[in-house]
Order: sequence, then structure tokens, then C-alpha cells
Amino acid sequence: MIMRKVAVLSTGLTKVDKHWRKSLRELYGEAAKAAINQTKVPQLDALIIGNMCASDLSDQNNIGALLADYLGMTPSMAYRIEAACGSGGAAVLGAYTAVASGMYDFVMTGGVEKLTDGVGGNTTYSLGKAADAEFELFYGSSFVSLNAMIMNHYMHVYHTSREDFADLAVLMHKNGARNPYAQLPFPITRDTVMNSDMISDPISLYDCAPVGDGAAALLLCPLEDAPKYSDTFVEIVGIAGATDTINISSRTDLLTLNSTVVAADRAYKMAKLTPKDIDVAEIHDTFTITGALSVEDLGFCEKGKFHKMLANGAFEAGGIVAINPSGGLKSRGHPVGATGAYQVAEIAMQLCNKADKWQVPDAEVGLAQNIGGSGSSTYITILRRAR
Amino acid sequence: MIMRKVAVLSTGLTKVDKHWRKSLRELYGEAAKAAINQTKVPQLDALIIGNMCASDLSDQNNIGALLADYLGMTPSMAYRIEAACGSGGAAVLGAYTAVASGMYDFVMTGGVEKLTDGVGGNTTYSLGKAADAEFELFYGSSFVSLNAMIMNHYMHVYHTSREDFADLAVLMHKNGARNPYAQLPFPITRDTVMNSDMISDPISLYDCAPVGDGAAALLLCPLEDAPKYSDTFVEIVGIAGATDTINISSRTDLLTLNSTVVAADRAYKMAKLTPKDIDVAEIHDTFTITGALSVEDLGFCEKGKFHKMLANGAFEAGGIVAINPSGGLKSRGHPVGATGAYQVAEIAMQLCNKADKWQVPDAEVGLAQNIGGSGSSTYITILRRAR
Repeated sequence: MIMRKVAVLSTGLTKVDKHWRKSLRELYGEAAKAAINQTKVPQLDALIIGNMCASDLSDQNNIGALLADYLGMTPSMAYRIEAACGSGGAAVLGAYTAVASGMYDFVMTGGVEKLTDGVGGNTTYSLGKAADAEFELFYGSSFVSLNAMIMNHYMHVYHTSREDFADLAVLMHKNGARNPYAQLPFPITRDTVMNSDMISDPISLYDCAPVGDGAAALLLCPLEDAPKYSDTFVEIVGIAGATDTINISSRTDLLTLNSTVVAADRAYKMAKLTPKDIDVAEIHDTFTITGALSVEDLGFCEKGKFHKMLANGAFEAGGIVAINPSGGLKSRGHPVGATGAYQVAEIAMQLCNKADKWQVPDAEVGLAQNIGGSGSSTYITILRRAR
Repeated sequence: MIMRKVAVLSTGLTKVDKHWRKSLRELYGEAAKAAINQTKVPQLDALIIGNMCASDLSDQNNIGALLADYLGMTPSMAYRIEAACGSGGAAVLGAYTAVASGMYDFVMTGGVEKLTDGVGGNTTYSLGKAADAEFELFYGSSFVSLNAMIMNHYMHVYHTSREDFADLAVLMHKNGARNPYAQLPFPITRDTVMNSDMISDPISLYDCAPVGDGAAALLLCPLEDAPKYSDTFVEIVGIAGATDTINISSRTDLLTLNSTVVAADRAYKMAKLTPKDIDVAEIHDTFTITGALSVEDLGFCEKGKFHKMLANGAFEAGGIVAINPSGGLKSRGHPVGATGAYQVAEIAMQLCNKADKWQVPDAEVGLAQNIGGSGSSTYITILRRAR
């Protein structure tokens, strides 16, 4: 391991929303400029951007060059990283290696996604391309139907109910109601979830993250240079990715996200930390079932104990670990290829004490967990407040 | 610059063809297994794959995880890199930083593309998404029409003719006829080009690279470890990417690929080499005009002098630099997101003296130039025979 250390120097977000008046480049431009304007870096050497659906929904590939051009970064190096819903986390990992290698000093990264008001294609079908096209999508599986099977299985094995899952959505909305970047910034009750339309039994509308547009930008640089350009930055102390079978029918255990288990293990080891050291985590709650599995597989609670711990307040500020103070995918929103970048940016903001009304007190170490597909990949980033 | 040095340990190719009986995963699997079987590496730590059109033409995103699963690499880290037609070269650059950073030791990279027999969408339209969707594609521009404007302008400024350009296609087919991986492995004459159907005046069918399917795999590892696993490997001595405006109407000079000029300058400096040191080059001749501009902008001849030098044999083995002994995009074929990976793999084969009938004698240093969009980005890799 002969790396140089890497810092997140600054971040910028757009509110997740239906941004019908903003194009893909305008969305990322808004986030990137917010990040750039917080620092006085001498140059931007590369742009590594996460995105999943621009080809389908904006008729646009090649968005690395597109965005570098729009930001006035030409002739800097640029490319896109895609790992389905994990694109944002994967882009941060790619940008991390770009800086750690010594090739690039100042790297713009993050993610952008425009899921509403697309020029062509169908959003649900486009998202389905994260599954196995030949063995899942072709047979009519959608992400919600695949996850509905997992949720049914969880309820059967661990004797839990739809109501138990609803409580995670309630907590997410309670958190997101404080976050000005959230797409659905309002509180809900257990009844809101239970009475919402059934999408794919047992997943109802309020078990699902909404479809939205958004962009999150992060500016990475060598840790040793960071103090020159900002008073508030964080160190990336652990970062890792891992894969599992793309097709969920190939897995030995439907109730374990093995990519999360392995990526977390790698990231904890790299950071020389354990789950107990994490003060705040942004986890990938595409559906309430995904949130429950994620918290368990990150090591924050025993398998099957998620709901009991949730009821005890373990996942709120002051508990074992503050889960998704941003509101998570459920309330903050899930612009798929940008989601992982929102998560890392949110953790950076928490550690820099910049999260205003949704701030977790005294957070020093935080973790972001971003999933691609139905757990076919996970990208984990562990950040520590730089002192 | 605190990098560790990186080697290309082995490569694997499929013939470029209409592979109607092979899926995307089978194509890359064939190439990857060929690369893996040449070595005895202890593990594969990551898969970084280049691809452009799988979402449109195979209904498949998330191919990092898909291919890692198919290759039995799970739970290794995986993601896709996309930079339009430059995806393959960009993936090699991403894989290079992954190894150079110290994060990963053995990285599978390369590219895969399936352009024929797609499940949906239209290949020409899908390729058009490399251009600016809002300011070029929307108005009906295709890649061939954009390049036709550039070719017309070149002929006007430098007083050359369609016949002059045809001679590059003739040389490419002469080279490709010796390459068993080539899609169009047969010689042609100037008349073949001149009498072929006009696609977008002055670009005729035989000025264009064909549409095909293919995969190229490269296995990268730290240079210091390479001798343990292979007798024949090459060192990546220079590697760089650069961008230009995505929209060609924004450029100050239509006849300069500025992304190529800048990326080449960066890669030459990193390698401490000049164009004179390059024995063999694989350049991005999507159209004959793109080939001419590329050779000039890489510094192999003065601006506007390409055709005179071509007629003098400067770009054949024994000349100034052997250009595209593989047959280039024109004859070897252009599976877009895989093309850059074919180029780097071809150079590695040349330097390891593994190119059989299309071998350039005594090649020690080679360069691959891979373009994304109409020159909106270029990725350059310079390799040297390891001694």
C-alpha cells in the first residue's frame, strides 16, 4: 500500500426534485460551482462523474467531456463511471484512486441524474437495466418486484411485519423534513405508509424511494494540500467496493447483501475502525427492506434485529449510529447515479458541522454505503474529520 | 508524482465481427479468459470495463458487476467507465490509476461492445449520443455528417482530394488483411473507396470504420510483480487523457483535435519521449479524415502534410512510424467502447513480438490513441517493451 492520502475538500448539492427547467449539465454545473466556490484551488485536473440513465433518458452519453466543457475545465481529463445505482459511490472510488495514484491533484467528482422529464425511454425500464437483462429484466422483473420477494422472505424468517418496515420510512421522513436538499421534506406516520398504494406486495409506495433529479459534486485533493485551500475538509480513511451475483436467484442467502458485508469489511480494515466507531452513516434505503438489510450487513446490529433496534432509537442521533440524517433515499431522494455522491457529500457536511438543522452533534467519523443493482455491488466510503 | 509503475501483464482479443450467437458477457468472457490463461496470477482484485452502448443495445447497465459475476471474480470490486468511443482507452487509464494508487494489484480491464443484433434502439442513433444531444444530435447531426464537414474543410484548406483520403483506407485494409482479429481482413484499392456508396459527402462507405461486436481484455499489475507471472509484458510509461468542447461548432479550429494534442503532450512528457521515439501506433481512424488529423496531431507529421507522407510510405513498417498494423478501426473494426482496449492490447502484442503476420519488426515503444466523440476527448497510452 503506497498511496498518498486523499481529502474531500468541498461539496455542493442541488435539492433533489423534479427539475424540469434544468438540463443534465445545468444540474451538475450548479452542484460543481457550489463546491468550487468554497475553495481557491489553482486548477481542476480531472472530472470523474457518476451517472446511470443519461443515455436512456437524456439521449446523452459522453457526459464526462460534456460536463468538463460546461464547467470550463477543458482540456482536463474526464470520463464517466457507471455502476447502476452505485455509480456515485463508484465515481468517488475512481476519483480517489486518481488522486491517490499521484496522477491528478484536484479531481471533480460526484454524480448527476435526471430521471423525470426524459426525452425518451421509460424510467422504470431504464432502472431495470441494473438487473440482469437476460435473466431478470427480460422476464418482467422490476427492481421493486425483486425486492418485494426479499422483503417477504425477511418477514417470514424473522417474524416481522409491514408495520415494522414502515417505521424506517417514518424515521427517514422525520430526518428529511429538516434537510433543505430533500425531495420529500415532510413528516409521515406509520399510517401514511400502511395506507399508501401497494406497488409490489408487500412493498407499498411509501416503502419506496422516490424518482427525482439531482446532482452532488465533491472536490478531492491530496490530504497534505487540503489545508492550503480550505479550513473545513475531511479525510477519506477507508474506501472499498465489492460485488455479488447480479442475478438474485444465484445467491445462497437472499437476506444478506454480501457485497455490503465484504466492502464494509475492506473499508473498516483500511480505516482501522469497526462499526462501533461510526457516528453517522448514510445507507442505501432504496426500499425499507434494503435499508434494514444494509444496517445489519454494515455491522450496526445483529441479523434479524433491525426492527427491535430501530424501535429502541438506536439509529437516531444519540443512539448507536445516526442513520441517514439527510432523510436517506426515502426522503432526501434517489437520483440513482448521483445518490452515492449525495451520501458521501452528506457525511462530509456532517463531519464539517455544516448540516445546519439536520446536524448530528459531535460527529467525527462517518460512513456512506451505496448499492448498485439489487446488491450486485456496494461502494463504501469512510470519512474522518480532519484535525 | 508518487506512483508505482504499472505493467500490462497479458491481453486477450476476440475477432471483431457480427457475433450474433454471443452475448455481451460471453464476448468479454472469451477475451478475459484468453488474457487470464496466459498468466498464473494469485487473484483478480478489480474489474474496470469500458463500454458505451450496452444500455441502448443490450438493455444492460451495471456490466461491471455482470462481468465480474460471469468471470467468477465476485466479490472483487467492479465498475464501468464510459467516454463514448473513448471508453476503452479511458478504462485503461482508470485501471492504471487503480493499480498505481496501491489500492489494487491485479486489475482486469479492457472493453466490450455489441453493436449488431441489438435488443432495442438504433445503432447510429445510439452512437450519436456521443455528440451533444441538445445542440447536435437533436438537430439531426450524426457522427458521419459532423466528420463530413471536417473532411470538406480539410480538402479546401490543404488542397487535397477524396482520392488522397482513400489511400489511407487502402493501407488500413492491406494491414488488416494479415490480422486474424480483423472484421474486414481483405485488401481494397483506391477504386473500392471511390466507387463505394456515398454516406455523407465527401465520406463514402469505405472512408468509414464498420460497425461490429468485440471485446479486448488487459490484465494490469504492478510492474515490479510482473516478472513473477509472465515472461512477456510491457510497461505503461505514459498515459493521459484530455478533453475538448463536445460540440464541434464551439471549436476555434475544426482541423485540430486539441484533445489529442494535449493528451499526447502529457503522455510524451510523462514517458520522457517524443513522437520520434514511437515505433508503432494504433490511431483512431473512425473515418479517413479522423485518421489524418490524428496522425498530424500526435506529432508524426506537420499539419496538412499527412497525404504527402502517406504516399511516401512514412506510415508503414520501416517508415517514420508504423500506423495501425492491426488494420485500425477501418479494417480491424470499431466496436466503439472496446476500440481503445483493442488499441492498447495491439500495441502490447507488437512490443511482445506476438503479432504474427502483422508484426512490426523490432518495435520497442508504441502508442495508442483513442478518441471519444468528435474529438471531445482523447486517451493516450504509451507502452515500452519491458526488459
